[in-house]
Amino acid sequence: MDKENKLSMIVFSGDMDKILASFVIATGAVPSGMEVTMFFTFWGLQALKKRKKTGKGFFGKMLGFMLKDINKLNPSKMSFCGAGRWMFKKMMKSKNVPLPDELRKTALELGVKIVPCQMSMDVMEIRQEDLIEGVQPPVGVASFLEEASKSKITLFI
Amino acid sequence: MDKENKLSMIVFSGDMDKILASFVIATGAVPSGMEVTMFFTFWGLQALKKRKKTGKGFFGKMLGFMLKDINKLNPSKMSFCGAGRWMFKKMMKSKNVPLPDELRKTALELGVKIVPCQMSMDVMEIRQEDLIEGVQPPVGVASFLEEASKSKITLFI
Amino acid sequence: MDKENKLSMIVFSGDMDKILASFVIATGAVPSGMEVTMFFTFWGLQALKKRKKTGKGFFGKMLGFMLKDINKLNPSKMSFCGAGRWMFKKMMKSKNVPLPDELRKTALELGVKIVPCQMSMDVMEIRQEDLIEGVQPPVGVASFLEEASKSKITLFI
Repeated sequence: MDKENKLSMIVFSGDMDKILASFVIATGAVPSGMEVTMFFTFWGLQALKKRKKTGKGFFGKMLGFMLKDINKLNPSKMSFCGAGRWMFKKMMKSKNVPLPDELRKTALELGVKIVPCQMSMDVMEIRQEDLIEGVQPPVGVASFLEEASKSKITLFI
Repeated sequence: MDKENKLSMIVFSGDMDKILASFVIATGAVPSGMEVTMFFTFWGLQALKKRKKTGKGFFGKMLGFMLKDINKLNPSKMSFCGAGRWMFKKMMKSKNVPLPDELRKTALELGVKIVPCQMSMDVMEIRQEDLIEGVQPPVGVASFLEEASKSKITLFI
Repeated sequence: MDKENKLSMIVFSGDMDKILASFVIATGAVPSGMEVTMFFTFWGLQALKKRKKTGKGFFGKMLGFMLKDINKLNPSKMSFCGAGRWMFKKMMKSKNVPLPDELRKTALELGVKIVPCQMSMDVMEIRQEDLIEGVQPPVGVASFLEEASKSKITLFI
């Protein structure tokens, strides 16, 4: 099986800055002809959430309450109870860098495949209808690895 | 040198959720015929520790006291002084997802090569006998890179 | 386009231990004939800073005040307000492991290409003259991905 002009990413982190980096990489790869697949797992799923409340059982609900959506994520450093998020967005805006949710929209429009991890959705009690439009149906890790095997670049973020 | 059907991972993190992800990826890759090598370095070594107390010198002992074993690791987010760990394990159990130490056992049984990093063992004063059974002898980063060069997928976790 | 004997790294993290790991990997790859390119972005730019104060606007200056240089970075775990950094350096010294700034110097001497990310420099208001000698001019993510496409190993750190 030969390598194809593909880029695969496992987006594990839920930090605003890392989510941003993953979408910058994705949208930067498409213009040079790469096919991009992003596999969102664990905290990364927060970047795909549509509404705040998820979960059925006690723990699922508790977790659903703590999970954020893409606009409320904090950076991995200097979060300062949300002030860091505000500051970064300000700085990005002033340099005409798009915000995470704008980059996510662009990624979907460019045909980047956004795939949630089945196991993480099960454990965190998140359902397909809790996620934004345009997201692929969830797959397991083996399916993702098959795609990654054909990719020139694979990143764990 | 051609690519072989191999997956290599550098497991640097000592977070419970990332360790879990690394073993989920490893055990998910084997059934599709991939050979998997995991190179444990820095905090990742905690996932291989057998007993709590390691180290000879003052700093080594102090560090050995703070390093945990695989069942006491906290997730990278929502640790809540250990409550997050407890909650995650509860949620994983209820969804029939195996715990980290069970996945580690499965990985070893499936033939996943678990290799500790020589330099990290030296700096942290951890010896081979402090690690669980089935772990390969430690190697340097150059040996790992040689393996990774032949791998279709290499991840830094 | 075929794979060449190359290693590419995106250094996103500003944690002392991860910066150290990236330079250990870089300097460990060169002797076996690999060409190494390190792309420093976001917090990773701290590892290339020459002087403490950067930034022009209010936020840029505030951020410049908080960004550290390579010798003041804290590890990702056990930072203890700087005591962890001190302890790690002590332990590394006693085992003859070079410190991050020494490894960075070696990397440059060995011909490792150290490239800053254009967008991060813009957003964080860091200029080329704020960075140490020997660093390449900044490039965008697309240029880095082109290099990574030809690399046998690509890591996101």
